[in-house]
Amino acid sequence: MEVKKSLGLAVIGCGTVGGAVISQVLNQKAYLTERTGLNLQLLAVVQRSGSTTAARKGIDPKLITENLDEVLQNPAVDIVVELIGGTTTARDSILKSLAAGKHVVTANKALLAQHGAELFAAARKAGKALSFEASCAGGIPIVQTLLSGLAANRIEALYGIVNGTCNYILTEMIRKGTSYAEALAEAQAAGLAEADPTLDVSGGDSAHKLAILSALAFGKKIKFDDIPVQGINNLEVMDVNFGRELGFVIKLLAVAQRKENTLSLRVRPAFIWEDHPLAWISGPFNAVSVYGSAVGHTMYYGRGAGGSPTASAVLADIIATGLGCSQAWFDNLSLWPDVTEPAVQLPVEEIESRYYLRLMLEDKPGILGRVAEILGEYNISISSALQKELPPDRVDKEGVPFVITTHLAREGNVTQAMKKIESLPAVLEPGVIINIIDEHAEAF
Amino acid sequence: MEVKKSLGLAVIGCGTVGGAVISQVLNQKAYLTERTGLNLQLLAVVQRSGSTTAARKGIDPKLITENLDEVLQNPAVDIVVELIGGTTTARDSILKSLAAGKHVVTANKALLAQHGAELFAAARKAGKALSFEASCAGGIPIVQTLLSGLAANRIEALYGIVNGTCNYILTEMIRKGTSYAEALAEAQAAGLAEADPTLDVSGGDSAHKLAILSALAFGKKIKFDDIPVQGINNLEVMDVNFGRELGFVIKLLAVAQRKENTLSLRVRPAFIWEDHPLAWISGPFNAVSVYGSAVGHTMYYGRGAGGSPTASAVLADIIATGLGCSQAWFDNLSLWPDVTEPAVQLPVEEIESRYYLRLMLEDKPGILGRVAEILGEYNISISSALQKELPPDRVDKEGVPFVITTHLAREGNVTQAMKKIESLPAVLEPGVIINIIDEHAEAF
Repeated sequence: MEVKKSLGLAVIGCGTVGGAVISQVLNQKAYLTERTGLNLQLLAVVQRSGSTTAARKGIDPKLITENLDEVLQNPAVDIVVELIGGTTTARDSILKSLAAGKHVVTANKALLAQHGAELFAAARKAGKALSFEASCAGGIPIVQTLLSGLAANRIEALYGIVNGTCNYILTEMIRKGTSYAEALAEAQAAGLAEADPTLDVSGGDSAHKLAILSALAFGKKIKFDDIPVQGINNLEVMDVNFGRELGFVIKLLAVAQRKENTLSLRVRPAFIWEDHPLAWISGPFNAVSVYGSAVGHTMYYGRGAGGSPTASAVLADIIATGLGCSQAWFDNLSLWPDVTEPAVQLPVEEIESRYYLRLMLEDKPGILGRVAEILGEYNISISSALQKELPPDRVDKEGVPFVITTHLAREGNVTQAMKKIESLPAVLEPGVIINIIDEHAEAF
Repeated sequence: MEVKKSLGLAVIGCGTVGGAVISQVLNQKAYLTERTGLNLQLLAVVQRSGSTTAARKGIDPKLITENLDEVLQNPAVDIVVELIGGTTTARDSILKSLAAGKHVVTANKALLAQHGAELFAAARKAGKALSFEASCAGGIPIVQTLLSGLAANRIEALYGIVNGTCNYILTEMIRKGTSYAEALAEAQAAGLAEADPTLDVSGGDSAHKLAILSALAFGKKIKFDDIPVQGINNLEVMDVNFGRELGFVIKLLAVAQRKENTLSLRVRPAFIWEDHPLAWISGPFNAVSVYGSAVGHTMYYGRGAGGSPTASAVLADIIATGLGCSQAWFDNLSLWPDVTEPAVQLPVEEIESRYYLRLMLEDKPGILGRVAEILGEYNISISSALQKELPPDRVDKEGVPFVITTHLAREGNVTQAMKKIESLPAVLEPGVIINIIDEHAEAF
């Protein structure tokens, strides 16, 4: 067991992920040295004033401090690992650490999605590496795969199930036919959803990850605020089931599609064919499908959250930094938002997709013809149409559900057509619009 | 588009993969430079005397040569890419190239599985890197994932569908109920099986990949000849279907399981539960499931063969070599068979698994009791037992098929018990033994 290099670590934050990182560094010390030649030395655990978390986790009190500045003055600290989350203190801590000549490893997706360019510029100025494998899809090494494993590919599209909370809720809705509210309550009981689940179920967390992964996949600066985002919180189980009957599975997808030089980015509950590998991803698991010009379809699957899987990704970054790979990637690849051109992101109205539309109609003659006519006015071509029965939980309601699937259409046209359809007196409720995504189907 | 480093390449072999690599280097030159900062320069294409392949592919005649020695004298050549396959000329070429101070990239699984230690020792002596992403699972970046993405994990087990020909044949047998012979003929017609498919269908090719992946996953030297290997060529569709009725899907699996310090390695047609992600892998696709101590279950999916996907992996190695990562991994990680301890590989008799046993019995009383008695003598505990009807294609035969699934048992006991059972007069044919693998099932 030869030590080839010692690496001093300071970890900021000692929550679920921070605790797991520290525990892996301490408990697997010999194994990590044997495997990597690196002697990882935990030199400090920084936490906010008054916190007792680190002490309660049994960390040596001599290592615990509230004073980041002091830690940064220690020349033995090579890498600062930021695991507090949020976009204020975390941002300051990372900027300070880089300025002090430390490499930084972070799991902070919100911060990178919104302030990536600033942080990478600071890293470049300092001549240090900023790594973030754990920011996307937990333990799945998707960042290193985009940086290195698929480096020779021009990425055509990327589809991610990158929020385990949402995937768990949707899996419950699909399998048990429970409502969104019931499935959410179950997820909370199982510890798979926060008490306030907004960031997850609204799609915001998925959008953070989509921004980070798209920047790497396409080598363009992504404007996070321009990504259209829709969550699963308004999804009705009726639609989940109607889609299922048509051969579709509902997933909250982070979608990035390249059409020549434009990118179509969005987070949406979307129907995918039941034989697409992403349709199989159940419960809290994550998966990312990447379509490369040379490699074709690849998919990466694993746990997208949790202390230990996320710590696996943080440690991978620490090791890659220790071996010099993070620096080599950062210095040479032109994928970093401080040096890349802004992406041409399609405005939401111009996104093209197939659509599932569901209406609640009064059961009277002529109305369907009128709906079809309006869709035609907006250049929306119908692929299939079927009238359904009211599901048991809706029999108190009036009307009949009517489902239409379309061929490729512009989203702007679809929302305008729906508005017009909703104004018909025979249309009893606002219509439902769900993306159908089957552009990269594989048959063999 | 800033060139940060020029990299001279010599490619040996211009077949399917060689041709695809050359085409990607030449046709994507600007894109690769833009993305990686590397200017990849194709300096020579080495092929055997008399071959016209390179010329027919339109490669500049000035680059084509039969003389490797001359190419190696060119100081501008940084990397030699070996893509001729086989274990004789390829071995010589790699040893020569390393001795001449060139980095080497290869896709040659047979060579690495059988002569890995020698080749890595030569690379170490030369201070150069030997990379081989394309040797396992085609375009899936599984080697880099084991080297880097999962570096902090102690790997518990690895299960691979790493031969697309076999997976295509099995998918046909499962979906259409065709016999092995018919499915093989279809695979050949579809260009997915060689005219002589022996290396694929016998499991030999999967064993090569298993040896390479296990060496990296567990950091031990693997004795290739000690890996028990069974192919799909004797598989009866009857058993595929009986297993299906029990909730199992048949796959040709490359299996590596760690139990403390021993490794249980084997290539086997095996039954896995239909809800395991590997059960979903259809047609010519490959996938590798890796269970890590920190990350839990991860899976990597993609095309395991074909010129363009394999070239994606070769290019990934070329880029990682150009950026210095290959060298950093090779110098620091203790996973290379020239420096690792030999693995303690369990002899085949000591492998523990669950088993599917199928007998053809005369339909007379008492015989089942006798079979159960013999299994008991060998400490084999029965999990389920069911008598089946003869399938339509076997109604000319006598007897009734009888299927037993066992709890965990030692393979030596199972084969001995089967031998004794086969000697009973009421047993009409040799019995069928198939592994059932469900050790790492995940439920949620």
